[in-house]
Amino acid sequence: MTRTLKLGAYFTGSAVQGDSWRHPQSHIDADQRFDRYLSYAQRLEAACFDAIFFFDNLFAATDRDTVATTPQAPRWDPLVLLSALATHTRRIGLVASVSTSYSQPYNVARQFAALDQLSQGRAGWNVVTSTGGGENFNLDGHLDHALRYERAHEFVEVVTGLWDSWADDAFLRDKVSGQWADPDKLRVLGHQGKHFQVRGPLNAARSPQGWPLISQAGSSEAGKDLAARFGEMLYTAAQDLGQARAFYDDVKARAARHGRLPEHILILPGVMPVIGRTQAEADAKFQALMAARDQPAVLRALSSYASLGIDLAGLAMSDRVPLPEVIPETNSHKSRQKLLVDWIRSEQPTVQDLYTRWSAGGHRLLVGTPEHIADDFQHWFEAGACDGFNVMFSSTPGGLEDFCSLVVPELQRRHLFRRQYSGRTLRDHLGLPRVPNRHFAPASDPAPAAQADAPPSELTAA
Amino acid sequence: MTRTLKLGAYFTGSAVQGDSWRHPQSHIDADQRFDRYLSYAQRLEAACFDAIFFFDNLFAATDRDTVATTPQAPRWDPLVLLSALATHTRRIGLVASVSTSYSQPYNVARQFAALDQLSQGRAGWNVVTSTGGGENFNLDGHLDHALRYERAHEFVEVVTGLWDSWADDAFLRDKVSGQWADPDKLRVLGHQGKHFQVRGPLNAARSPQGWPLISQAGSSEAGKDLAARFGEMLYTAAQDLGQARAFYDDVKARAARHGRLPEHILILPGVMPVIGRTQAEADAKFQALMAARDQPAVLRALSSYASLGIDLAGLAMSDRVPLPEVIPETNSHKSRQKLLVDWIRSEQPTVQDLYTRWSAGGHRLLVGTPEHIADDFQHWFEAGACDGFNVMFSSTPGGLEDFCSLVVPELQRRHLFRRQYSGRTLRDHLGLPRVPNRHFAPASDPAPAAQADAPPSELTAA
Repeated sequence: MTRTLKLGAYFTGSAVQGDSWRHPQSHIDADQRFDRYLSYAQRLEAACFDAIFFFDNLFAATDRDTVATTPQAPRWDPLVLLSALATHTRRIGLVASVSTSYSQPYNVARQFAALDQLSQGRAGWNVVTSTGGGENFNLDGHLDHALRYERAHEFVEVVTGLWDSWADDAFLRDKVSGQWADPDKLRVLGHQGKHFQVRGPLNAARSPQGWPLISQAGSSEAGKDLAARFGEMLYTAAQDLGQARAFYDDVKARAARHGRLPEHILILPGVMPVIGRTQAEADAKFQALMAARDQPAVLRALSSYASLGIDLAGLAMSDRVPLPEVIPETNSHKSRQKLLVDWIRSEQPTVQDLYTRWSAGGHRLLVGTPEHIADDFQHWFEAGACDGFNVMFSSTPGGLEDFCSLVVPELQRRHLFRRQYSGRTLRDHLGLPRVPNRHFAPASDPAPAAQADAPPSELTAA
Repeated sequence: MTRTLKLGAYFTGSAVQGDSWRHPQSHIDADQRFDRYLSYAQRLEAACFDAIFFFDNLFAATDRDTVATTPQAPRWDPLVLLSALATHTRRIGLVASVSTSYSQPYNVARQFAALDQLSQGRAGWNVVTSTGGGENFNLDGHLDHALRYERAHEFVEVVTGLWDSWADDAFLRDKVSGQWADPDKLRVLGHQGKHFQVRGPLNAARSPQGWPLISQAGSSEAGKDLAARFGEMLYTAAQDLGQARAFYDDVKARAARHGRLPEHILILPGVMPVIGRTQAEADAKFQALMAARDQPAVLRALSSYASLGIDLAGLAMSDRVPLPEVIPETNSHKSRQKLLVDWIRSEQPTVQDLYTRWSAGGHRLLVGTPEHIADDFQHWFEAGACDGFNVMFSSTPGGLEDFCSLVVPELQRRHLFRRQYSGRTLRDHLGLPRVPNRHFAPASDPAPAAQADAPPSELTAA
């Protein structure tokens, strides 16, 4: 089968998609109205997207300027939202971030197992260590970066261990004999680690995908290690082809060192397309979106996000961005900070350049015709820079509809994207096998079970 | 308006309702098939039930006998299940247990706020301290009873505090002025307690009910204190009218001491009806259900649940139940143990008597015609023993359908139960007002806001 693009759709779970909430055609009530997100999900499923993904965080900013001008809150709980979407969709994957820093693995394992059952095999867990929130979880501040990733590794070990509590055929449900389950097909986890002590078993059966899909987005060294070990779908923020190829080769090589097949780890850089039937129409749409942004609010948010110790809102738009002698250490999105610093060093942009470039939240911005965008996607894909894209719509419903009705048909015409789903589960869409239970060989397979502590992909690659 | 019965429906979230999974007509796959629970919810909504409720726990037994014979696992995650049900129902309340011992208040506050938004005001949180599970949450065993309740009080304080993070009209969403929210309508919680340190604010808006409904089920002294302070719908296991009236008077008096109106705390004893058009038909249905139970498995489960140090499965059915000299201290369901001990002391039952009586999981069993069951409900209701009942169906779909098609019409004929919903939210159904924000008077009300640390019912009773 020809290799084709994978397409994910990025959402925030909040009222608004993108920064242009004041645009006359932007929906700004999706935090209250489930029917908004439902319509997006159904449109994307009609366009054969692989998955929709919900970002999450566990705090809300409190400074007056941010509260007054930025739709950072409210935000749906992603599991509640995905569970509701699951019963109104049939094929599209349902992925959400849940934090390893501020949750317990037993609860997370249950929720995603239940979502996978409910959706008949379409659940995905985006493993995040979070960019903040400690103040809401009994801490004075955010957990330290290194400690977060150490905890994340152990957290995923526990969750995946719990998912293998029961053999696929453990539950017999035999009314005649009275046997409900086979005790020999239960494995108690008994995890005793530095961060967690979890006995198990999970009070959930194995789910349709074996394990819900594991996605991940960290691009720091610690993030790449986690991705290489467990990640199956990776969201990245590569800004140019060279960066993207370097990341792609690096992570696939790391995965191979864990005994995984490179094609079992799919890399989807984020991209924000602004689409017009002509370049002039696309440019005009982009200008209208930029005009509907709150410039000081975006500059404040960017100053905070970049963590460079610079107040961009206090500079003139024509000033060159002043980079400090020493780049301050950040405790979150380390890799995003590095991308930004490298770009500022090499390009010496003005504040206006940075403001425009950063309009996709640090992701790549593409403004053009469907052909232009398809050319770009095809070039990256064929150059070995990615396996697909995580599409961040510039607005809803407009930007989403433009992509589905203009870009998707162009990708299909080029045989780069499916015209219909060929499988049922998210793993099917991504070309990933169902994950077998590490402790129990399938009934039809007399081979010995894999080792209990083997990394997951040795199993899927076997 | 005439006072009418409130009816809740009890479910476990597992594959089977009741202990008679081997009954030929019992569904035994509701843990895998969402459409089963959907059909129950829609049938109950057609019958105008106030709410459906999902029990939960955070562990699964591992002893071979229990695993082999008892459908104790798998079980749905209740928030995933309720979120899916929310978009397929319009009026019925959606209530689930979530543990204060093994969750974090920020996460719980978000989930129920989201469910309340999704369901347009039908969410309820059953506050439980859990009967076990510590081994899955970094502990050597279950948290101590007193510590659990101390933690529960603080947990509910934090959750309700987070629910009041934003005024109802905090989010302006004004595209023209560019004002998203009013910073003066945000209150940061800043909770610093013994068990929790939670800064806030919640990244969710106030939900349709103000606060999701708070239900509760503990009947120990500590449980009644928690109920009197926060509980709005209480599930109990009263076995006879005297017990039920004593509990009713006790809890309503305790609530009054917290400044709450007695009618703002609704008490729903659990009851399992087995219904026939004639008494003989009802008796035959009960016998068929009993015959479909696994007697040793039920006796083992009862021995474990009762925590009396007696192995009932090792006795003859005709033996009198031997009560030990000293009743062992239990760390869970203290009140249920006491009810059982009192009953054994006064009745001196045989193992068979206990087995039969305990067939409703410690709740009251009623076997009879619709008229008989309606008589009983009416008697308890008019005698001041309850505000309604939490109905535990002996089986699904049979027992549920019998109740909806036979008992509900009889209650309606007597004007004891609604023929249609008159309100939209769960609080509407229960006659409870929407909870105002403690920090912000409604826009139309110039009265000063209530104190930040006032107990909730001073607010609702004002």
